[in-house]
Amino acid sequence: MKTPRFTPLVVDLPATVPFVGPEAHMRANGRPFKARIGANESGFGPSPRAIEAICKTAPDAWMYGDSECFDLRNALAAHHGVTPAHIIIGEGIDGLLGLLVRMIVAPGDPVVTSDGAYPTFNYHVAGFGGVLHKVPYRDDHEDPGALLACAEDVGAKLLYFCNPDNPMGTWHSARIVERMVRAVPEGTFMVLDEAYIDAAPPGTAPQIDPDNPRVIRMRTFSKLYGLAGMRVGYAIAAPQVIAMFDRVRNHFGMGRVAQAAALAALQDQAWLRQVQQDVAEARKTLGRIAADNGLYMLPSATSFVALDTGRDGTFARRLVNALMARDVFVRMPFVAPQDRCIRVSTAPDAVLNVFADALPNALAEIEKSSHAR
Amino acid sequence: MKTPRFTPLVVDLPATVPFVGPEAHMRANGRPFKARIGANESGFGPSPRAIEAICKTAPDAWMYGDSECFDLRNALAAHHGVTPAHIIIGEGIDGLLGLLVRMIVAPGDPVVTSDGAYPTFNYHVAGFGGVLHKVPYRDDHEDPGALLACAEDVGAKLLYFCNPDNPMGTWHSARIVERMVRAVPEGTFMVLDEAYIDAAPPGTAPQIDPDNPRVIRMRTFSKLYGLAGMRVGYAIAAPQVIAMFDRVRNHFGMGRVAQAAALAALQDQAWLRQVQQDVAEARKTLGRIAADNGLYMLPSATSFVALDTGRDGTFARRLVNALMARDVFVRMPFVAPQDRCIRVSTAPDAVLNVFADALPNALAEIEKSSHAR
Repeated sequence: MKTPRFTPLVVDLPATVPFVGPEAHMRANGRPFKARIGANESGFGPSPRAIEAICKTAPDAWMYGDSECFDLRNALAAHHGVTPAHIIIGEGIDGLLGLLVRMIVAPGDPVVTSDGAYPTFNYHVAGFGGVLHKVPYRDDHEDPGALLACAEDVGAKLLYFCNPDNPMGTWHSARIVERMVRAVPEGTFMVLDEAYIDAAPPGTAPQIDPDNPRVIRMRTFSKLYGLAGMRVGYAIAAPQVIAMFDRVRNHFGMGRVAQAAALAALQDQAWLRQVQQDVAEARKTLGRIAADNGLYMLPSATSFVALDTGRDGTFARRLVNALMARDVFVRMPFVAPQDRCIRVSTAPDAVLNVFADALPNALAEIEKSSHAR
Repeated sequence: MKTPRFTPLVVDLPATVPFVGPEAHMRANGRPFKARIGANESGFGPSPRAIEAICKTAPDAWMYGDSECFDLRNALAAHHGVTPAHIIIGEGIDGLLGLLVRMIVAPGDPVVTSDGAYPTFNYHVAGFGGVLHKVPYRDDHEDPGALLACAEDVGAKLLYFCNPDNPMGTWHSARIVERMVRAVPEGTFMVLDEAYIDAAPPGTAPQIDPDNPRVIRMRTFSKLYGLAGMRVGYAIAAPQVIAMFDRVRNHFGMGRVAQAAALAALQDQAWLRQVQQDVAEARKTLGRIAADNGLYMLPSATSFVALDTGRDGTFARRLVNALMARDVFVRMPFVAPQDRCIRVSTAPDAVLNVFADALPNALAEIEKSSHAR
């Protein structure tokens, strides 16, 4: 008998990870990146008030964080016009997705997502033995009608929908999402991942009855709030859904300093608005850089952009690698035909200038090596 | 069909939480505690270098933490004389216990622990449908022989052993633990929870071959390192065991600031030694306070002490409540006969003085109300 006796489920899981982090790439490169614009972190940084809150709380780091996240949950409830019972806080959307999948997906249970959507969701579904059914993108957008039809067809317990979309940056209007929520099949629970909603134009965030038991919306402090390194996400759903998280979550998992940072960030909406403007400006700058290099930038409602190379995944992969070799960290979609694009995060001008300098050289190198073949 | 369709396992879980946190108690009390000595946090605080690291890293909080925790893992490997492949870092021991249970325990699988040992472990076992077999304490110590016999008897997949013990503070010598590790039945994997090992006398930490595939030892920065609020724990085990965590963990779950804080704390061993002395002194002080009030302090190898009331669980519960009413936060063991004790964390003198002032009044109040019946 071999020890430990891992569960058959875990033994059968692949030894892959959803993402290689920028630090791992840098270690492989042997030097730091000059432009870290691949993980959709906010180079505009967190609110100075969040930084101050971190420093101010540091001497109290000997105390566990409030296991009920009372202050942050109440502030979020007021911010969203719901009650604290509608809100669960967790270790980023990643952590909350893991808990949600655990709560709903048993081995063999059907789950629906888009082919090429967030891999960490797929990682959790596989991790609990769920069976993924993937719906193709349609014109680089997630396809609400096809997702609903598939969910109905396979009897999905869970349906994942990201709006605005990662990795393409495209989006659907509030009206379409609202229609989708109304049309979710009986027995299907919809995950609306709104990680990038703060970067979207007005009219993107749907009105959802917070007591609707068929949908959960997920938000994060990791993107426009600039606190990826503190790991704070949250979700809004009906109280009977939120209450179930208490049966499985790591109750003291939310650190004291992280909670203080998120609360301070939430209270500085002026900073968020400034970052929203910065992101919008940076998208324009990236559009110009793309056009200067013969690439096409897809319209984006997120803090990143997809740049269409007009070629295929092999070309885009070589471009990503050529940029990495020039100390520019970017990523790309995983699935064709979206993988003809590279994905670039918005950032301050100084960082985008590094990208602008590296891009023509990277492209020239690829063209040259292509011709040499 | 009711939506969401939670798994049968989750539906059947109780809606209880392992611990009510101090903040929740304070909100119930309507005012802050004057002595927070119930959660075994370190009132001596974290190393000033850890505080400095937190502040210094705060402006970088927009970046995800290294998903491989490279620097911290390497430093811990050097500290323990193992390789980084022997180490997994997670969101406290609580988080690591959850992952480990998930990796090994499927519904119906037998697990062995001591009756009255760490409830959060039990919470995770229940959460994944494991069947707990509980072995009584023996003279307020966990009972290695009985634990091993039970594991053999039920064919346990997992065996939990905490040394030094929480909640009693008692301990076994390295020699006994080493013998236990050798005697773990085939097919049983042993979890050695060493959260409090930094407070134990020399000769308590066993020598364990880091490549032994039958045991994992867990450590934390939450106790003597004084960083409970940053949520950093780690485990040491054979590389093939450690590698399995990568299949299920939240890869970007360890925050950037938390990693920096833990690394700085590890590098300040002088601070740890000072805290070890402070803890030893505080245990003596608590012993005097106990004796002054007719209570008996059990010998302790941890950063807390169990004070024997000489009565029963009902009496101890009333004492805990009477102390809480006097703004002194303490806890108590859950299971008889250990629940005749209250559990008090070590802390600086100023805090222990608050306890010393409150204790006689609390005891007098209980005696008075007893006589009045």
